[in-house]
Amino acid sequence: MSSKIICSVDVVLLTLSNSSLKVALLERDHDPFRGVLALPGGFIHPDEDQDTEAAAARMLRDKAGIQSPYLEQLGTFSGRGRDPRGWSLSVSYYALVPGAVVQASERPGIVLHPADDVDWLPFDHAQIVRAALTRVRDKSSYSSLPVYLCGDTFTLPELQTVYEILLGEPINKVSFRRKMDELEILEPIPGAQKAGKAHRPAQLYRLRKQFRRKLSLTDRGINPG
Amino acid sequence: MSSKIICSVDVVLLTLSNSSLKVALLERDHDPFRGVLALPGGFIHPDEDQDTEAAAARMLRDKAGIQSPYLEQLGTFSGRGRDPRGWSLSVSYYALVPGAVVQASERPGIVLHPADDVDWLPFDHAQIVRAALTRVRDKSSYSSLPVYLCGDTFTLPELQTVYEILLGEPINKVSFRRKMDELEILEPIPGAQKAGKAHRPAQLYRLRKQFRRKLSLTDRGINPG
Repeated sequence: MSSKIICSVDVVLLTLSNSSLKVALLERDHDPFRGVLALPGGFIHPDEDQDTEAAAARMLRDKAGIQSPYLEQLGTFSGRGRDPRGWSLSVSYYALVPGAVVQASERPGIVLHPADDVDWLPFDHAQIVRAALTRVRDKSSYSSLPVYLCGDTFTLPELQTVYEILLGEPINKVSFRRKMDELEILEPIPGAQKAGKAHRPAQLYRLRKQFRRKLSLTDRGINPG
Repeated sequence: MSSKIICSVDVVLLTLSNSSLKVALLERDHDPFRGVLALPGGFIHPDEDQDTEAAAARMLRDKAGIQSPYLEQLGTFSGRGRDPRGWSLSVSYYALVPGAVVQASERPGIVLHPADDVDWLPFDHAQIVRAALTRVRDKSSYSSLPVYLCGDTFTLPELQTVYEILLGEPINKVSFRRKMDELEILEPIPGAQKAGKAHRPAQLYRLRKQFRRKLSLTDRGINPG
């Protein structure tokens, strides 16, 4: 049997703050790397966790105070060298949450750090974050994924800005709106508007109920250039 | 520490035979499910395996006699219920190999079974195979992935047939050739031809060296319909 393997889960929790993509880090409370910022994570508890996804959700709930975000398995990182305690594997997940959800968390100590500046993280956490960013950016180019970074309600210009931050380039407004129509994920909230640019009111939208935990995909890219 | 978790790897080895997609199965030589056909797999050996990918390559080499195919991590399947021995996780991989490579294997007992008929497999192997098929079909629609099912040399009509088997629909010949040009993965073998349809000789191609272990992606689908 494989009793000498350290089995953990780690979560790359991504959010937007000040118009840039951030990763949530927590100070480690035990060795190795005690006191160092790292991804929220920990050992799988076979008595408590139904599976690795449940373990990842437990980490987010207990360590970051965040419930039920969009959570997806990223991959498993493994080997002799990644943890000084011995041969280990981390089943890694990524989660997307609106900035307001992180701000409302009652757990202290969450640090939001620029997601592209992670080379200094302990273990192989930099590699895990980079894999999550590649996945999220790829997937954003043909799906509704970025919507999970928005709050419950948002205007189309706000959503477009989120896509632009993730894709790293401006998007044509007309083709963006066509793509959103094609995805069929949004519904206008009757009578709800928000002051937009130049004080013109902008319609507020929300995710249609059946897409709150499920992605919608387009055949072709959001911004095929 | 998480010492009660059974850590294994499983490999979905896909190949083409008689113009259909097959998954390689082996009879299990120990309990549970002794004598039952299942995916090639086994425990991770921390003393021997550099990481889970090395463990997957070892399974293929030792159990199926197959070296260095295109191998990619599929995902980790886990929980209390999937193995009667207790809480377990399987870091699963998929591999694509030409039919001739399986036929040349010196290990006896490899059974090539239709990849779409797997509901009867033990553990959660049916779920793992279905996840692999979804991944391979999705990826085939915008990448060079199907080339790994071809032999070292092939004609363009042969390659198109492989794409059509994976995508499950006919592809327009002109747009297929344009996509292959766009991927820039193939090179003609100087002076090498093969008798094609109606005895017209067809040029033989091979993968360019830098793509033998690396995918090339297109922006838009191979067969956008």
